[in-house]
This record gives sequence, C-alpha cells and structure tokens, in this order.
Amino acid sequence: MSLIVQKYGGTSVGSIELIEAVAEKIAGFRDQGHDIVVVVSAMGSETNRLVALAQEVMEQPVPREMDVLLSTGEQVTIALLCMALEKRGFGARSFTGGQVRILTDATHTKARIREIDSSRILAQLEQNNVVVVAGFQGVDEDGNITTLGRGGSDTSAVALAAALEAEECQIYTDVNGVYTTDPRIVEGACLLKNITFEEMLELASLGAKVLQIRAVEFAGKYKVPLRVLSAFEEGDGTLISLEEETVMENPSIAGIASERDEAKLTVAGVPDLPGIAYKVIGPVSNEGIEVDVIVQNAAVDGTNDVTFTVKRDESEKTKAILDKVAQSLEAREVILDKKICKVSLVGVGMRSHAGIASRMFKAMADENINIQIITTSEIKISIVIEERYLELAVRALHSAFNLGDPQSEFSSQR
Amino acid sequence: MSLIVQKYGGTSVGSIELIEAVAEKIAGFRDQGHDIVVVVSAMGSETNRLVALAQEVMEQPVPREMDVLLSTGEQVTIALLCMALEKRGFGARSFTGGQVRILTDATHTKARIREIDSSRILAQLEQNNVVVVAGFQGVDEDGNITTLGRGGSDTSAVALAAALEAEECQIYTDVNGVYTTDPRIVEGACLLKNITFEEMLELASLGAKVLQIRAVEFAGKYKVPLRVLSAFEEGDGTLISLEEETVMENPSIAGIASERDEAKLTVAGVPDLPGIAYKVIGPVSNEGIEVDVIVQNAAVDGTNDVTFTVKRDESEKTKAILDKVAQSLEAREVILDKKICKVSLVGVGMRSHAGIASRMFKAMADENINIQIITTSEIKISIVIEERYLELAVRALHSAFNLGDPQSEFSSQR
Repeated sequence: MSLIVQKYGGTSVGSIELIEAVAEKIAGFRDQGHDIVVVVSAMGSETNRLVALAQEVMEQPVPREMDVLLSTGEQVTIALLCMALEKRGFGARSFTGGQVRILTDATHTKARIREIDSSRILAQLEQNNVVVVAGFQGVDEDGNITTLGRGGSDTSAVALAAALEAEECQIYTDVNGVYTTDPRIVEGACLLKNITFEEMLELASLGAKVLQIRAVEFAGKYKVPLRVLSAFEEGDGTLISLEEETVMENPSIAGIASERDEAKLTVAGVPDLPGIAYKVIGPVSNEGIEVDVIVQNAAVDGTNDVTFTVKRDESEKTKAILDKVAQSLEAREVILDKKICKVSLVGVGMRSHAGIASRMFKAMADENINIQIITTSEIKISIVIEERYLELAVRALHSAFNLGDPQSEFSSQR
Repeated sequence: MSLIVQKYGGTSVGSIELIEAVAEKIAGFRDQGHDIVVVVSAMGSETNRLVALAQEVMEQPVPREMDVLLSTGEQVTIALLCMALEKRGFGARSFTGGQVRILTDATHTKARIREIDSSRILAQLEQNNVVVVAGFQGVDEDGNITTLGRGGSDTSAVALAAALEAEECQIYTDVNGVYTTDPRIVEGACLLKNITFEEMLELASLGAKVLQIRAVEFAGKYKVPLRVLSAFEEGDGTLISLEEETVMENPSIAGIASERDEAKLTVAGVPDLPGIAYKVIGPVSNEGIEVDVIVQNAAVDGTNDVTFTVKRDESEKTKAILDKVAQSLEAREVILDKKICKVSLVGVGMRSHAGIASRMFKAMADENINIQIITTSEIKISIVIEERYLELAVRALHSAFNLGDPQSEFSSQR
C-alpha cells in the first residue's frame, strides 16, 4: 500500500464516458489498497472554448482575468470525476489549486509553483478519500488565481508528488510510453521500460513530446519517479527515474530523437578573433531568438565560420539580423539553409564509449548521408543533415544499434 | 459620488455582446463618479449545461461536488466582464465567492450567508477599480465551495450591499420593474416607482416573480434600498425601501397579485373541539407540504369545516393524507377543488381603511364573481375564487382602484 499521484490529461477526460473510465481505473488502484491523489486537466476542448470567449472580448486578454477564466476548466473536471468516484462507492474530495493550497508566484498565465500545503490532502487521505486536484492552477500570496502555462497539469502532478513524498507520479496520456524513436518513422520502435531524467529531457526537447520538459526537470530535481503510460490501454509504460549505477557500465542508448523544423545559418569569413562568436550570436539572442546547435571553425586563411541553428519560423528574422552583423564585421557572407534537420542519439554513458560515435557516423556513411554539423554532450550526439534524409537516418541508426531488440548490447533496457 | 452594488442576471450576461453592453452600462456609472461593485450570474444557459453534465454522471449529484461544478459558471462571467471593462480603460478586478470572502454555512447547494469580509473589495475600490463578484457562491469555514441555491445571486448582491453599506443595490433583470399587476393580464398596469419591502414580499410570494423573496427579506432586514430595473431599457425601475410615514396617512395600494396553481381542500364536519385545526393541518405539514390560506368555520350543528389551500401539484397527495385524517376524526368528508385561484390586493396602510375591503368585494359582486374564501393581513386582502375568473377579477380590481393612474386616490405612487 503506497501513495500514488496520477495525472489525466484533457484527452483522457474529454467526455463523461472517459471520466467514468478514469474513475474505473482509479477504483482498481483503490481496490489494491493504494492511496490515490489525482490531478486532472480541463475536458478536451474546454480550454480552447474559454480562450475563444476571452478573445471575443479582447485579442490580448488581461492575464489576471484570463487565469480566473481558464481555471474553471479544471474545476469542472474535478467535480465530475469526484461524482463518478462517489457513484462507485469511493469517497472523493475535489480541490482547486487555491484550496490545496498550491502557492505560486504572481506571474499570471505562466506562474511558477513555490510551495504546496499538503495538510488538507493528507487529512482526506487519512479518511480514505480519493483526492482530486485541479491541475494547471494555483494562487499567489494575495489569493489571486494563477495558472502555470503550457504543460501546467504535469507540473502540478509532479509538485504534488514531491510535496506528498509519493511513491510514484503517473502521467496518463494517449501514448503507451516513451519509445526508442518515433514509431511513425521506425516500425520496430521499442517501448522503453526505464529511462533517466537526463535522457528524457534530451528526448523531450528533441521532439519526442510525451511529457512537458518543465515537469521532467521538476521531477528530476525532487527525485520523483515519473511514469508515463496510456489512459486507454493496459501496460506499465515508461518509468523515468534517477540513473542506476549498472547502466553506467555499458554503452547504453535510450533512443533517437529527430527535429525537423530547424534552419541553419552560417556567417562565413569573419575575422578569427576572440569574442567573435559573441558578436555574432549576441544580437540574435537579444531579439529573443533561441539558438540551438552552435559550431565555430577556424579556417586556414585566418578567417572563421560561425554556424548555428534556430527554429525555422524565426530563420528569416535571424538572417536579417545577421546581414547587419556581417556588414559591421566585414564578414564574407551569410548563408541560410532551411532544408536541414537534426537527429540525435541519446543515452547515459555513451559519451565514454568512442565506439558509439564511430558506429553512428558509419551508419550515415553507409547510407551516403552527408553530416553537416556534429555536436556532442554527456548523454547525446546530435548531427545536422539534409532534411530529406531524416527518416532514413533515424531508421539506419535504430537498426545500427539494434534498438528494436531490448536485449541489444546497446540497449538501456537490458 | 456613492457606492452602488449592481447585479446582472443570467439573461443579461448571456453572450459576449450582452456582457459588452453591461460593461457599457457600468462605464456610464463610473463616468458619473460612482464606485461600482458588480455581482453577476452564470451566462444564460451555462448552469443548465453544467447540471446536465453532472446528471450524466449521477442523477442525484453529490452536493459538495455540485457546488464545485456550478460555481464555475459565475467565475467565467466575472473574468469576461472584467476583460470587457479593462478594454474600455476601466480598472476591474474579479473575485470568486471564496476570494471575497463570502462565508456561508456548510449546507451545500442551499447555503446561507453568515458573514462577508469587505476588506479586499474596499481596497480595490480605493484604487479606483470596479469590483466584479461571482454571485450565488461562497465558502464554508473549511474553505469548501458552497452555493446559495435559487435566486442566490440576488442574495449575494444584497448581502454585499449591506456589508459595504452601499447607497443602493440595483438588480438588473429583463423587466422594467414592479408593476401594479401582471401587464399580461391588465394592459394598463402601471410601473411602480416606490414600494416597501413588506409590499414587495407579498407581491413576490403571490406571483409577481421579479425578485427572489429571500433577497427581499435580506434587504429589508439590513435596510438596503433595492432597485429593480431593466438591463436592456432605460428607466429608473422600482425602488424597494422602508415605508415612508406619509404613506401611512392614506389608503395606499401597491398592486394586485394573482396565483393560479393552487388547490382548495376542505375537511367537512369535523368535531368542533380545541386542537382540531392542528389535527388536520399537522399531518399535512409533517409531509413537507406548504399550506397557504387557512380558514375554519364553526357550523351551528356543533361540527366544523377546515379549509385551506396548497400548491396544485401537491393536492392529490394532500387529499390522500386528509382522507386518513378524516377517518380517524370521523369527519363527514374531504373535498378537493383544483379549479380555484387566489387574487390579492397588496398595500401598506390599507388594513385600517374598511373602505378598501368593501370596494374590493363590491367589484367582485359587480362581475358576479363568487368569493369562496377571504383572508386578510396587515398589508393585504386575499380572496379565493373560481380559476376561470382570475383575469376578470384582476382587471376589475385594477379598474375599481384606478391603479393605472399614479394620481389615483388609492395609489401608493402619489
């Protein structure tokens, strides 16, 4: 018997039928003797409906009132889910973010959680009640309603699990868990049983958008075991937790991420002087544009090429900035290439095994795929290649490391 | 410059267009320099939508969760109205019942207000903000969300006006105010400028359902001047306030109320003994049936007839109870008459003028309408007559007292 925090997203509670199914699932856990705290999102398209109402009034709705408005979405779900549980004979009590109380800063529409008072929840659990908490919301010090922004409900769940010292935080979604790569690209993509927080962060930010990065960071920081699993199908999903020591012994690859919507910019022929990278990247960052992969190569002629990638829809704006920069630096030219993509191999402990990198590059060579940029970090190797080779590259890598087989010598799942 | 509490009901805020119109109205009051606290209901049919959702889950939804669910309706409105005010350049802050805080007892779905903390509202008014409060809701001592039941938003508004010592509480509805009688029955029905709380209570309970009785009682108790007026048309509406001394000098008739959905029951030939009325009425009240007009007549033969009226849809149930009572009391018979109605003349100071009653009875005699029961109180005379004469009786009385003319010697509006 243990305390589990479960989070059900909008698609899992999108109708009364689905809410009833969630209640059934919770009932099963209660029957096994677990204490359950549930975090829910707004029903299906409810948040969109509310946003549309607000935008009928004003295009940029007042943030404070937007939070008052949006927070009603989750409040509806908590009430209905409690009713569905009570109907099944289980005691259930709903709480809004303000009632819990989930204290946040005062940044409306993207507040950060500061503190959770777990006493009301614990009192209800002691009375054998299921506690159902509205995700995505809190209150600031003055009692104003706040919301946590995108992926806020995942964050609410992790924060509650941390505050309650729950055994596990389960995030129910419409996928079965985290795969070795996108199953739409590789038919043999394999469901991961275990993955570390670090690996999940790399996979999430690189495109395997199962969980909000923020929630994963939060879970890692507070060491909350996080499990991603399907609200609709049976299965244990993927457990995201601290890395185990045994994993460190072997080269261990968690998966392959790919990102399509990037663009590459090169400022060619800048003087090879200290501070040149800052002079190129600085003006771009100052405009709020996020820069991803960066490489700098000194050429033999005493000049330098600075290359980096940005989101594709910000690439024209970046080009315009760089054109000015290039002029003042007397650089040769600025080259924009929108037809690129990034493919990354992610796994704890792979960095220390040179064999991994060379196997990756050989797989690309075998398919005649030209690698434009390579970057490495502790737990990943990313390459930038022509966009049209994305699927081919992912399939080649998945096969080169035999990731479809959990018994593969490279698999983190052994 | 004074503090005004305004309440806008569901039909007045049923769409974004209507909410914009309400914002315009409030803007006008702000431009005149008034401090404004607004109480709003849920948008149009929103409450029905939420009730339907709950009933999809369970027929008799858990009251605590029903309150969590229903209270979202008003919360949506407060946010949207604040946005509409901000768009017009007016500072506005929304508050849920819990945020204000409107403290109630713990009776979910029909809680009673105990106390209001006006400090947050006053602080906002000092900063020149319009304060928009969700009607119909509060919190109990433990912070659970409660709702006030039918007509709750009117009650919220009156309670806030009392707590804030507002100059006036304005209830905006879809009628222009209170009329001398139902304008659908009498074409010349006249809008009342002033009326006392007592008169309004009698008119409301007798069928002129403009305001919830509970709110009028509340306003009377705390001496909050209450004004009923149209959200859609210009006009000063009807001011409901304490009786003025001048009114007492003259026979003064506020209006004529009529009630159609009643039924008359007579237990005939019961022994003429002390306690007999209790023996007849007691068992009916014990079943939760509300008894209205009661008369008892001793006959010359030493027996007694007890007659009273109940709501028509409870009359068959009442008859069944009385049949048993009659048997145990050895009464002669129980007679049920469903084809009756009640017409009442309401006005402060009329009791002391015998001329009023006789003029009323003469008007009925002139129309050949047989009066079955007469009852009187300080401020009203009610008669029970055959249902088919309802409109005829109301028109005859309206004309007999010349109520279509505010200058009439009987009018309370002089």
